[in-house]
Amino acid sequence: MAIRAFGAELPTWVDDEVAAARAGLGSDEGRMRLLNRLAERNIAEGSGGPFSALAVRSGSGEVVAAGVNLVLASGLSSMHAEVVTISLAQARLGTWDLGALDDPLELWVNWRPCAMCYGATLWSGVRGLVVAGDGPELEALTGFDEGPMRGDWAQQLEARGVRVRVGVLTDEAVAVFERYGADPDVTVYNARTSSGV
Amino acid sequence: MAIRAFGAELPTWVDDEVAAARAGLGSDEGRMRLLNRLAERNIAEGSGGPFSALAVRSGSGEVVAAGVNLVLASGLSSMHAEVVTISLAQARLGTWDLGALDDPLELWVNWRPCAMCYGATLWSGVRGLVVAGDGPELEALTGFDEGPMRGDWAQQLEARGVRVRVGVLTDEAVAVFERYGADPDVTVYNARTSSGV
Repeated sequence: MAIRAFGAELPTWVDDEVAAARAGLGSDEGRMRLLNRLAERNIAEGSGGPFSALAVRSGSGEVVAAGVNLVLASGLSSMHAEVVTISLAQARLGTWDLGALDDPLELWVNWRPCAMCYGATLWSGVRGLVVAGDGPELEALTGFDEGPMRGDWAQQLEARGVRVRVGVLTDEAVAVFERYGADPDVTVYNARTSSGV
Repeated sequence: MAIRAFGAELPTWVDDEVAAARAGLGSDEGRMRLLNRLAERNIAEGSGGPFSALAVRSGSGEVVAAGVNLVLASGLSSMHAEVVTISLAQARLGTWDLGALDDPLELWVNWRPCAMCYGATLWSGVRGLVVAGDGPELEALTGFDEGPMRGDWAQQLEARGVRVRVGVLTDEAVAVFERYGADPDVTVYNARTSSGV
């Protein structure tokens, strides 16, 4: 009988990290410090890449879901931190549109989403995207191929009602990527990489 | 206790349709006819949009997985046909890289993937992408916002070792989108749509 269901489960340590960071989650820096901590812990746990995300209510600031990259833990290439976090938030709130709420959600990520998660952000309905940074540092330091992005990626989100904010604790996010890149034991789960276009 | 797992399950009728089409799956047209049939049935079943995909071994032609859009059935905005099909194939084969096999997989879809599934295709490792068409018909007829794509989307895939083929039974795929667009009972699950950029 062929497998007919698939999915992922959030590691329990993610909840522990969120609980430990709870007091600081009202501030931009507190949220980004949690993201960097989750990304760092994800390397140590071997669940996937050094990537994390939060789904946060834009008004109250409530963290509805926190997620990490689970590609290695789940064996599924689509289980990036943004997809995991968006999916958990949708499962918890019972809606596929995270923007159609009295207090709509925004997505916080420890770097600009890859080509897949950029599209996943649009379909999720979140009304905002806040990232630690959006430069070439992630690919240069980690070796991941984030896929082809458009130069006007942010304007395209704004045009669809997704407010974009770039640059919260950027250096701390880069430091996590530096440690990842320097770790000989990590798995960079690129399938193919570009021969250069 | 907050929900900590998520996923999707393939409806049993998908297996029935694949079994019924089995004899013709050795030909390009037979595969695309199955995709159009799955997309049409998915509308009637109310599981999601009129979209379907196959993960096929490029050498033997074995269909490893068939999937449909399950956004409405799962309540998860990322459960597009490509993500469902790629995930089922990865779960069945026990690898996150569908190209790292003796007989690597290719993805067949009833139209050009959206912005999210374009990136999901890259991460999946498939070595080929075959689509019924890639023009504006899908968005024009169904009302779905497929997200911002790059003009060189196909070259970017080719540069990463993914062979792209466009145009198998294009008119039959368009006919499915026409019927979907004319159906007053369907749910077009765009979160936001572009104000035009």
